[in-house]
Amino acid sequence: MARPKNDNFLRALLREPVDFTPVWLMRQAGRYLPEYCETRRRAGSFLNLCKDPSLACEVTLQPLARYGLDAAILFSDILTVPDAMGLGLYFADGEGPKFERPLRDEWEIRDLQAPDPNVHLRYVMDAVAEIRRALADSVPLIGFSGSPFTLACYMVEGGGSEDFRTIKTMLFDRPDLLHRILEVTTTAVTDYLNAQIESGAQAVQIFDTWGGMLPAHAYREFSLAYMERIVADLIKRRDGERVPSIVFTKGGGQWLEAIAAIGCDAIGLDWTTDIGEARRRVGDKVALQGNMDPMALFASDEAVRKEARRILAGYGSGSGHVFNLGHGISQHTPPERVSALVDAVHQHRP
Amino acid sequence: MARPKNDNFLRALLREPVDFTPVWLMRQAGRYLPEYCETRRRAGSFLNLCKDPSLACEVTLQPLARYGLDAAILFSDILTVPDAMGLGLYFADGEGPKFERPLRDEWEIRDLQAPDPNVHLRYVMDAVAEIRRALADSVPLIGFSGSPFTLACYMVEGGGSEDFRTIKTMLFDRPDLLHRILEVTTTAVTDYLNAQIESGAQAVQIFDTWGGMLPAHAYREFSLAYMERIVADLIKRRDGERVPSIVFTKGGGQWLEAIAAIGCDAIGLDWTTDIGEARRRVGDKVALQGNMDPMALFASDEAVRKEARRILAGYGSGSGHVFNLGHGISQHTPPERVSALVDAVHQHRP
Repeated sequence: MARPKNDNFLRALLREPVDFTPVWLMRQAGRYLPEYCETRRRAGSFLNLCKDPSLACEVTLQPLARYGLDAAILFSDILTVPDAMGLGLYFADGEGPKFERPLRDEWEIRDLQAPDPNVHLRYVMDAVAEIRRALADSVPLIGFSGSPFTLACYMVEGGGSEDFRTIKTMLFDRPDLLHRILEVTTTAVTDYLNAQIESGAQAVQIFDTWGGMLPAHAYREFSLAYMERIVADLIKRRDGERVPSIVFTKGGGQWLEAIAAIGCDAIGLDWTTDIGEARRRVGDKVALQGNMDPMALFASDEAVRKEARRILAGYGSGSGHVFNLGHGISQHTPPERVSALVDAVHQHRP
Repeated sequence: MARPKNDNFLRALLREPVDFTPVWLMRQAGRYLPEYCETRRRAGSFLNLCKDPSLACEVTLQPLARYGLDAAILFSDILTVPDAMGLGLYFADGEGPKFERPLRDEWEIRDLQAPDPNVHLRYVMDAVAEIRRALADSVPLIGFSGSPFTLACYMVEGGGSEDFRTIKTMLFDRPDLLHRILEVTTTAVTDYLNAQIESGAQAVQIFDTWGGMLPAHAYREFSLAYMERIVADLIKRRDGERVPSIVFTKGGGQWLEAIAAIGCDAIGLDWTTDIGEARRRVGDKVALQGNMDPMALFASDEAVRKEARRILAGYGSGSGHVFNLGHGISQHTPPERVSALVDAVHQHRP
């Protein structure tokens, strides 16, 4: 099986020559699109949308119908994995994700098991296969997972947190328990990403949303070390093609050299990092993905184009750059601004 | 006038030899102390507490009565400055600070004026003088202000923000307007800090709470450049003694070399930065302040001591380290944990 017709995204990740800098946006299928809100209404809830492969496929394709994006990303939620581990994911109105049974007692942690993704997360694999069929080799499909530490944050806190007090108390007081959670979650994430690759994902991204809230030494021990094991155990080739991996630690700009050393093909940068400096720091070890401030999309088309050109020029010439935002697109973004951005990126000659 | 009896804090900032590593905690006079809550109740409101010099003095001294801290910090709020500019600071219950008249229209921005701190912020200067008398040269008193960019965030957003959408839209669309706000606020902060020094503050800290939410180039243009001007215009000596300045950009770990170059005496580090690496990066240009994760204070005494020793060892031998947390102490902190921390720091021989 050959690469998709537009394979600039895969080529940039592998630092092969590209026709133009490819672009996709984190959370590109989301609430800023009226058609997404329509489908979500029909689904009845966000979780129904995630768990119905046809609806997940429908919303995955919506941003590609509007914009000339160079990759699709599976529509799902990072918390489906702990949900499949039995923690009982639910969404309280206006409150974000919660778990009915967060990990609090030692016996719950000892009992934790990695789910079989082909059984307990079958709906995700079905969505991946259906999206691949629908894409018909136009652009590549990205699979993804939360990082073990980020998943553990939600599993221990029981939902979002402002200060991560519960998991950090565990980290300082009972590192053995946190390591046990991370061990099991690492197995779960590895199996989950490999099942997505087997089902048709052509690249994978690990979202380490909360690793950047850790002290540097704890980041290495409790987040990066586990992502390194996952990257090592990922399926490297499928249908004769390399399956690249992207590691994105939000707030990880201080640790790029360490991230580049774990064997991933690319690093996602949040918007605070200067992409030119990042390139000098990681050299030719990895490709870079990012990193426009999502809030720039609230400015005028002209300001959006200027900011995009600044980042493209900052990266410099040659392949190895996948343009993206430095974080998920805001639900309040005017959809027409995304057209201005995608056009500006594609007009640039890398 | 001589230095205070315990001047280890000032000596560490100036990288002169110390007897032990000095320690103070950001927000050390705060809600985790029952005696603070008692005084605040008597004051009727947080703003009353800030605006009454005797009560502000009382709460400033409370943590020093409990713990062997090596510096006092003026009890006040960073938003008293925009309040004095006429924006109308108020605190809605459980919602954090708000302004009645946030800066939205161009004419409001054009009309903005720096207040005379000795008139409009007289209550702060009176508190500084009263605290100095009460301290009776036992330990130094730190004065402080928010950074111009951090103050501008609240002035433009009208309160706290999750995404800083309003100010960032202004930054990308109308940088001229944001620069105008920052110009006036820089004058206000400079005058305010110099008035604190004239009233008796023996060191000053600039809190740049939100500069770390900016893209690197915007941090330099909209936050760091203005702090550089303030540092240049600060009163350098008072009563024959050098008045050191500390710049603390939360989330600024990527930019330490640039911060060290603006002429401040010390850089505050948040808890994500490795203090040993920070020291290697800034060399002997500045002292370092920080940087324990405030959440470590929820672990056991033994874990607190271990984490403190890890940071002290990470800094290494010699002067130039003021121990602190990497952010303000949490209101939920068990007060007895602070004793364990202060003892551990003082037992260490730098």
